[in-house]
Amino acid sequence: MLAESGYAGLTMDAVAAAAGVGKATIYRRWRTKSDLVADAVAELSSMSIDTPDTGSLEGDLRVLLRWLVAAVNGPLGAATLSLLSALPHEPGLREAFHSGPMGVWSTTFREVWERAEARGEVHEPIAGTAVSATASAPILQRWLFSAEPVPEAFADELLADVVMPLITARNAA
Amino acid sequence: MLAESGYAGLTMDAVAAAAGVGKATIYRRWRTKSDLVADAVAELSSMSIDTPDTGSLEGDLRVLLRWLVAAVNGPLGAATLSLLSALPHEPGLREAFHSGPMGVWSTTFREVWERAEARGEVHEPIAGTAVSATASAPILQRWLFSAEPVPEAFADELLADVVMPLITARNAA
Repeated sequence: MLAESGYAGLTMDAVAAAAGVGKATIYRRWRTKSDLVADAVAELSSMSIDTPDTGSLEGDLRVLLRWLVAAVNGPLGAATLSLLSALPHEPGLREAFHSGPMGVWSTTFREVWERAEARGEVHEPIAGTAVSATASAPILQRWLFSAEPVPEAFADELLADVVMPLITARNAA
Repeated sequence: MLAESGYAGLTMDAVAAAAGVGKATIYRRWRTKSDLVADAVAELSSMSIDTPDTGSLEGDLRVLLRWLVAAVNGPLGAATLSLLSALPHEPGLREAFHSGPMGVWSTTFREVWERAEARGEVHEPIAGTAVSATASAPILQRWLFSAEPVPEAFADELLADVVMPLITARNAA
């Protein structure tokens, strides 16, 4: 429903109707729309991806970045986008977003970088640096700020032209 | 007003009151809130930056990225964020956003890359590639998806650890 109506367009009435229950049932559990959506956002975490373990950094990142492209093009992306503008005004929602889906995504990425470090594929910690941001950020920028589609090929271009060359250059430095 | 109230919270009444005119005056010019905001978004372009021309790619990118950090932390960032969730549902707004502020920003970046190419600092065209996205995208990702602040030092880290090493590696390849 978030993906279709947006956060601003979502009503407790519509949620009750879609769930086939009375409005009172909804209000017993959630006092406000913000509370209800915060719980729904926490549930979005379960739509995340299991950490890939292909045996190589490039293989693992390819799985993650293709998953991200599919996510931004699907209902998970639409639901996430519908929330972004509300986050500065809704502390509970913001907290649920960061500790839920964003927290899960950061942890997944961190595991992939740390395994690559353990295998000797990267010579110094990458998780949390500006370098690690290059893996996902161009996909998010293209999704939110360009008028162009985000094809799977863009994930592969990013990996081939940005992330892997950067890792190689850092390892050689 | 967008920065403060968000798009969803903005009303024609409040706009009329802030402008010190009657509501009819507003409606004579703009039939809907979407029309009014689309014109306001087109005006955001004028809050953009003149293309820097410091004589070096690194110098020009430093000016652009520091400007972007200041922008996301200020009213321009708040106004932009307030619109993002509305864009999928408002074609006129989306068009104004892409042809206005986003178009100006792309053109500015393209000029900086092309000047660097003309000076021989980059050996092949960069504008529009995944490589060019690494300059701004990590700033936008941190702003929208992390719980952390976006300090000016992050722009400098991005330039020193990502963009310049990547350009050097590509030129050497």
